[in-house]
Amino acid sequence: MKSYRKELQFDVPTRHAFINITRRVEEALSESGIRDGLVLVNAMHITASVFINDDETGLHHDFEQWLEGIAPHEPVSRYRHNVGEDNADAHLKRVVMGREVVVAVTNGGLDFGPWEQIFYGEFDGRRKKRVLIKIIGQ
Amino acid sequence: MKSYRKELQFDVPTRHAFINITRRVEEALSESGIRDGLVLVNAMHITASVFINDDETGLHHDFEQWLEGIAPHEPVSRYRHNVGEDNADAHLKRVVMGREVVVAVTNGGLDFGPWEQIFYGEFDGRRKKRVLIKIIGQ
Amino acid sequence: MKSYRKELQFDVPTRHAFINITRRVEEALSESGIRDGLVLVNAMHITASVFINDDETGLHHDFEQWLEGIAPHEPVSRYRHNVGEDNADAHLKRVVMGREVVVAVTNGGLDFGPWEQIFYGEFDGRRKKRVLIKIIGQ
Repeated sequence: MKSYRKELQFDVPTRHAFINITRRVEEALSESGIRDGLVLVNAMHITASVFINDDETGLHHDFEQWLEGIAPHEPVSRYRHNVGEDNADAHLKRVVMGREVVVAVTNGGLDFGPWEQIFYGEFDGRRKKRVLIKIIGQ
Repeated sequence: MKSYRKELQFDVPTRHAFINITRRVEEALSESGIRDGLVLVNAMHITASVFINDDETGLHHDFEQWLEGIAPHEPVSRYRHNVGEDNADAHLKRVVMGREVVVAVTNGGLDFGPWEQIFYGEFDGRRKKRVLIKIIGQ
Repeated sequence: MKSYRKELQFDVPTRHAFINITRRVEEALSESGIRDGLVLVNAMHITASVFINDDETGLHHDFEQWLEGIAPHEPVSRYRHNVGEDNADAHLKRVVMGREVVVAVTNGGLDFGPWEQIFYGEFDGRRKKRVLIKIIGQ
């Protein structure tokens, strides 16, 4: 069994962002030399997400509006976590979108359906954060 | 390390459906000859889900009602993704239910608790879709 | 490839609880002798969750309030699953929080960001339940 580990760095200038990281995961896979196995991609921070969906601007706007509806930022005082912080809603948004994805590796590539793309979801940006890529296989 | 890959095909005649695929995952596991490891089961499409829950009709009705409440189909015009499409809500419903499950393989079987069953969740049917089963282990 | 399997037992005296199980997963990892690979931690019951977030009391209170808002227990009669049961909402809450986490194992430890902790989320306690830890690697 071979394994490979890589971190991606982020420092998003806005509070929220969806960033397509598919190419960067493919780069890590290529560096690993692993052609068959599994890749785990996870946010290393608890107010950020890694998820798979469509790379379509309108949909990302819909995600944003929808998340604000079910896990609103305001009023900040509604959350007990917000003592010296104002990011409780970011923890909830990350729960909805998920921490991680596990993707099959087949023939040296991400074994994806036609529209699958991997995104980093930031819900409390303006600080340094990381994503972990861990690949195991042969 | 051994690995095995199989696709399941779906062409659901309705917009929504929950289909128990546990038996089909067990078949793939049996075909693989793998007795110890991990199996990944994921939707290859971004308006469908693979999740684990109870095989109980009343509960599935509750899931359906609940998802419609937190990620409604109507009005279609509320979503920016719906330009020539009307499936934005299907993307949201899939986010809630999840893309994938990872299940332990022990002694050649799915290492499950008493009520765990694997479901394919369709939120935008009436077209061909696929589920990927990837098993690694020994 | 090596593998290791361990179950954790729970019998929570309340309906709901969030229990930090990070130390117990680290113990299992240490017992396994595996220094590089993946660990799967999943609830074996469909009204419970395993998830990763912050170990902060205020935040856990916020999770509790938020889940009650989007997947309310009352009125029990609103759910079809509640025939001789009253736990339909527990199935929904578990869907939101997730069944499982997959964590990278590097240098014999959980490959975590600064605040990541693993929790068992109970939504229908007062009965015996289990969590499965499955580790594969070398």
